[in-house]
Amino acid sequence: MSTSAQIGVTGLAVMGRNLARNFARNGYSVAVHNRTAAKTRALVEEFGDEGTFVAAESAEEFVAALERPRRLVIMVKAGDPTDAVIREFAPLLEPGDMIIDGGNAHFADTRRREKELREQGIHFVGTGVSGGEEGALLGPSIMPGGSVESYATLGPMLEKISAKAADGTPCVTHCGPDGAGHFVKMVHNGIEYADMQLIAEAYHLLREVAGYSPAEIADIFRTWNQGRLDSYLIEITAEVLSHVDAATGKPFVDVVQDQAEQKGTGRWTVQIALDLGVPVSGIAEAVFARSLSGHTELREASRGLAGPSVTPLGDAEKAAFADKVEQALYASKIVSYTQGFHEIQAGSEEYDWNIDLGSVAAIWRGGCIIRAAFLDRIRAAYDARADLPSLLADKSFAEEIAAAQDDWRAVLVAATQQGVPTPGFSAALAYYDALRAERLPAALTQGQRDFFGAHTYRRTDREGSFHTLWGGDRSEVPA
Amino acid sequence: MSTSAQIGVTGLAVMGRNLARNFARNGYSVAVHNRTAAKTRALVEEFGDEGTFVAAESAEEFVAALERPRRLVIMVKAGDPTDAVIREFAPLLEPGDMIIDGGNAHFADTRRREKELREQGIHFVGTGVSGGEEGALLGPSIMPGGSVESYATLGPMLEKISAKAADGTPCVTHCGPDGAGHFVKMVHNGIEYADMQLIAEAYHLLREVAGYSPAEIADIFRTWNQGRLDSYLIEITAEVLSHVDAATGKPFVDVVQDQAEQKGTGRWTVQIALDLGVPVSGIAEAVFARSLSGHTELREASRGLAGPSVTPLGDAEKAAFADKVEQALYASKIVSYTQGFHEIQAGSEEYDWNIDLGSVAAIWRGGCIIRAAFLDRIRAAYDARADLPSLLADKSFAEEIAAAQDDWRAVLVAATQQGVPTPGFSAALAYYDALRAERLPAALTQGQRDFFGAHTYRRTDREGSFHTLWGGDRSEVPA
Repeated sequence: MSTSAQIGVTGLAVMGRNLARNFARNGYSVAVHNRTAAKTRALVEEFGDEGTFVAAESAEEFVAALERPRRLVIMVKAGDPTDAVIREFAPLLEPGDMIIDGGNAHFADTRRREKELREQGIHFVGTGVSGGEEGALLGPSIMPGGSVESYATLGPMLEKISAKAADGTPCVTHCGPDGAGHFVKMVHNGIEYADMQLIAEAYHLLREVAGYSPAEIADIFRTWNQGRLDSYLIEITAEVLSHVDAATGKPFVDVVQDQAEQKGTGRWTVQIALDLGVPVSGIAEAVFARSLSGHTELREASRGLAGPSVTPLGDAEKAAFADKVEQALYASKIVSYTQGFHEIQAGSEEYDWNIDLGSVAAIWRGGCIIRAAFLDRIRAAYDARADLPSLLADKSFAEEIAAAQDDWRAVLVAATQQGVPTPGFSAALAYYDALRAERLPAALTQGQRDFFGAHTYRRTDREGSFHTLWGGDRSEVPA
Repeated sequence: MSTSAQIGVTGLAVMGRNLARNFARNGYSVAVHNRTAAKTRALVEEFGDEGTFVAAESAEEFVAALERPRRLVIMVKAGDPTDAVIREFAPLLEPGDMIIDGGNAHFADTRRREKELREQGIHFVGTGVSGGEEGALLGPSIMPGGSVESYATLGPMLEKISAKAADGTPCVTHCGPDGAGHFVKMVHNGIEYADMQLIAEAYHLLREVAGYSPAEIADIFRTWNQGRLDSYLIEITAEVLSHVDAATGKPFVDVVQDQAEQKGTGRWTVQIALDLGVPVSGIAEAVFARSLSGHTELREASRGLAGPSVTPLGDAEKAAFADKVEQALYASKIVSYTQGFHEIQAGSEEYDWNIDLGSVAAIWRGGCIIRAAFLDRIRAAYDARADLPSLLADKSFAEEIAAAQDDWRAVLVAATQQGVPTPGFSAALAYYDALRAERLPAALTQGQRDFFGAHTYRRTDREGSFHTLWGGDRSEVPA
């Protein structure tokens, strides 16, 4: 048994296997280990010629195979299995060694684990890995947290195996201490939910309001993919919509059950945003839209509810409407990213992570599901001003949204009148109109709260908290 | 020291003090106790003539003063303080005794505490109490959980001190085991958030689109309060809007800072709904609207964003618009309650609480913040059919919403065109339109998930899970 492996991967399901192969294909010697040794052997048999693998059957063998400081990547299910693997390996490690968790852990678990292991002198690097199976093999977007020290030697390896943006930059950056990487990955997934919901609404509008066929809509998405919406999700939308089901000859999208599933990270994004006091209404509507779609009993009970009679547009109006939908989609997308980056900013402040928002945008440009030309724009906005209070405060985004807003509103008017649900588009516009409002009716809310609960209020014209004696003579008293 | 007190209250801040007085005023002898004895003495000095109080200075004295089985109400801050008080008193109690937690506990904490105390033979009754200070004194809406056995002797006492609905029914019911009461109270608060947000949006529209003054809008709300919207919140909205600030002579609502605060139960309602997979978009938008209003830095950075030029309605159109806003408000309110009751139903199924939804509607008719004539309608809907899959499946609500929907859509069209944010109204309509849709674009979402993550999909025409080989020949394989 050599002790020359530069990195080790334990947990050889498809993500772990592909990540191990990615390291090997990039010239690193990789120790591999799995709870059941058969998978370890299978990997080496099948892919051994791709690079240098060191197969380890036991935990002790695995640890012994790693050069020091040891870099041990765990790719197991988030939650208890991750803790179990840490408990197994941590006693075998020495100060200075690193455990890299590449699973979809909740950042709060990552913070706990990092703290526990730090007391033993072990670096725990919670790392977001995006791009699915293919990304893991060919180059994912990588979002490591953990200590600066760990990144000094781990970073260059991650940069090598990561996706590269169009300009050649590796899609990896040190997000910040402890849970920063998994937090950034969580918000990435939340934004992915929102992106997918907005695309679904655009498709629904083109289908129901304009009366386009799936194949025609695929062509529209292909056109959009040549412009500012250029992105992986728009590209695959065209692929999915143009696909014809072989069994029935129908459009594929018409034979798939319209019940969307989810795995939890979108939900986390909203739950944490609520804790942080960040409005992420677009992401929330995306999560709710998926759960609503799965409530078949509710949907069946609601089939007879009254709606407007829908009259699809004539041929002359259709193309113009499609252009407006592109504006609405783009404007809503700007709002989604505004909300998502606000959450990262708030998390960074809450946990002292000092996350560089421009770098986050940069590393999402390749490898991950939301990769898009658009992210170059976001990076540029934060590069120009790192303390931008909101993406909407960036001049070029503000200008684009100003140019889009008439069409955005026209699309929502059509959706409202025709009875096509657009929760994501609507939430985005409400957020936009609320942010730019001189006065919000929150003043009335505060008045009500003071009335029924003596919760007090502040005034616009002087400092302090006040309470009105609503049950008495309605005079005002300092609170 | 007598041992004759029928009930005890520890924690004599305003809610605890008022609840103790309520028991005493209803003829019960009440032992009272507080961490600092000064408050105990003050209560007896100030309100001793209202009934029979037994002042206890120590925990031991307090427990000794209670007749058996002991009924000990704790009214302290939710969270650690509640655990501390339980740790203090539990060792002094005997099997069969009851601890009643009347604070705003998270239902998960209540479940934990109930389980721990049950092992000692002590009944732990997590109890929602709504109605604020005044309700606690004059009659709150009370939502107890805990064992059936505890309710047998505690129930009649709670019925006596509770609010009474217009038909004389006490506003209290045994919600279900362990955390059921605190869960119901949590959703009550979530619905309260949504109600307040919808009222705020109605006000905002009447102000900005119709150009009415706050005093005129107060009159409109007074009129609405004579009809189907008759409720405490509509009533106090008129009071708040008609109030004039003495210092400036301006409408009160114009001198209050438009930054709404919150205490957490609305947020919990959304977070738990996400865990349960229940779409509560109206409640979520209400919580987000409050947090957005408080982000002053974001709002200031967004002031210059482009919006439509607003042209208030002429006098001839204003009254008609106000009528439409009433329709929109009422329809959105039906949706809010649909979502809230869905959450209670889902929680009840998840935790085997067997909550009677009609009874929940019934006990909210008096004492609490959301008390409204409307709740009689909800009770009737569930009385007619206990397993109603959704409030929208009730014929009379469906008919009302059918009658309202044209106006509801017209109001949203105006809001969209005029740039007035209506996140709550919009989320409600999107929910309604999504539920009644024959097909949702969730099919596209499933197709995308299968494309990028091999997450598989189901088909409309046969059983099983399937995957398309997107990277290969695009044939379909069983998954």
